[in-house]
Amino acid sequence: MKMFDKVVIIGTGLIGGSIGLDLRKKHLAGQVVGLSRKKGNANLAQKSGAIDSVAASLDVVSDADLVILAAPVDVIIDIAAKIAGKLKKDCIVIDVGSSKERIVSKLSGLIPNFLGCHPLAGSEKRGAANLKAGIFKGSVCVITPTPKTDKKTLAKIRLLWQRIGAGVIVLPAKKHDRILAYTSHLPHAVAFSLIGSIPDQFFGLSSGGLRDTTRIAASDANLWSQIFLSNRSNLLAGLSSFQVKLEALKLALKNKDKKNLTKILASAEKKRKKLG
Amino acid sequence: MKMFDKVVIIGTGLIGGSIGLDLRKKHLAGQVVGLSRKKGNANLAQKSGAIDSVAASLDVVSDADLVILAAPVDVIIDIAAKIAGKLKKDCIVIDVGSSKERIVSKLSGLIPNFLGCHPLAGSEKRGAANLKAGIFKGSVCVITPTPKTDKKTLAKIRLLWQRIGAGVIVLPAKKHDRILAYTSHLPHAVAFSLIGSIPDQFFGLSSGGLRDTTRIAASDANLWSQIFLSNRSNLLAGLSSFQVKLEALKLALKNKDKKNLTKILASAEKKRKKLG
Repeated sequence: MKMFDKVVIIGTGLIGGSIGLDLRKKHLAGQVVGLSRKKGNANLAQKSGAIDSVAASLDVVSDADLVILAAPVDVIIDIAAKIAGKLKKDCIVIDVGSSKERIVSKLSGLIPNFLGCHPLAGSEKRGAANLKAGIFKGSVCVITPTPKTDKKTLAKIRLLWQRIGAGVIVLPAKKHDRILAYTSHLPHAVAFSLIGSIPDQFFGLSSGGLRDTTRIAASDANLWSQIFLSNRSNLLAGLSSFQVKLEALKLALKNKDKKNLTKILASAEKKRKKLG
Repeated sequence: MKMFDKVVIIGTGLIGGSIGLDLRKKHLAGQVVGLSRKKGNANLAQKSGAIDSVAASLDVVSDADLVILAAPVDVIIDIAAKIAGKLKKDCIVIDVGSSKERIVSKLSGLIPNFLGCHPLAGSEKRGAANLKAGIFKGSVCVITPTPKTDKKTLAKIRLLWQRIGAGVIVLPAKKHDRILAYTSHLPHAVAFSLIGSIPDQFFGLSSGGLRDTTRIAASDANLWSQIFLSNRSNLLAGLSSFQVKLEALKLALKNKDKKNLTKILASAEKKRKKLG
């Protein structure tokens, strides 16, 4: 069932392109137009069936009913400023950035019908080459309205995510960022640091544990430095609380305190089993 | 092709039991007898086809041709002392512990035909309930002889691991422990600390990244406190070098130094992609 006449996706990478695939497959849009800084990416997305056509410039948003900003955090903010004056009055704009407070505070002032979204379906495998239909099925999408957000816009975007299979959680941007600092940004910071500390001449004796623990360190550095900086104070707090835990483990080890070391590990083991 | 008449596996958990499965499936042993501190585990291993029979006591080693010690590090050392006087003169004893220096130095003095082994095929899923045939196929097994190790014993055990599918790497125990501190023990210490630092009320917004990064924190606390303590100084060095990397990332973030932050992440991204 069609929800929008014309959808424009700016950034046809893993998330943007995969949304396009689902929109088209489920006939939720009359047409889906895509743009990418790297033209090859948009062409690849069209070839994969994620978009109907590739747009030549940002002017394409002028008759759009929905614009999806699916670029790195800083780029989302840049592009929003460029398109704000070109939009139809009732055009809805959403983004899919991994941190929300900075984006929501900037974009809410620029675009009346803006709504921040964060589908928790990213991967270290990015780009139009990794597009997949159905990646949102069973995933969670956080929507971060402000007190000024139009109720109809909120309902429509909630429905959109549900139609492509995501469970929707509504949270203030501030709270989203505090939580995601721990559940996503901190694990990334830890993984980047962990792989950085392992001499690569030792890789021949690496275990599945090392691979899993550092998988997300293969994520795009440019994308993640923007996420880290846009959620800086929360991530700094997360890093500090992680360092406290690490120091406690290290101290027990240093002191050959088997009882306390086992207690620390047992509490972590129990907690990890709770995560499932 | 039979390599041993009677094999005794002490500890019929994931590794011990899976070796039993492969030995029996490939007809490498005349009979495989199992023992476990938890009798239920040994019975389950027998039911799964990992062993022919369950032994009542350690006396069963008296006519064994190969004894496989597949228990936690400290238990391996305890049991070795108990069986040393019971063995036939030409009986080979191997262990499968995750750290080698302490085990090899203690056991080499007790048992003339001892050879330390470490198959890199462990998992956070342990116990006889998780036995699987073929888990060593394509894996690496490190063998840690000493200058006194009998050449024939080394050749036979190397062949045994190869027969069940593992690629064999021969290393001094000291070197093994230094490398594994980084490629296995450090990632475990980091994963235990990471999950410990994440408020569990945030688990509802957890990503695949958090799950992967902390998967091995579901490993058995008692097993891992023994591994950590038996490789203490190497792990302490690994933890320190990880902390240095973490501090560098934190400092760049604190200083809003995007250039340096991106450089740190890019170097990690490149290194992780090298790991494959």
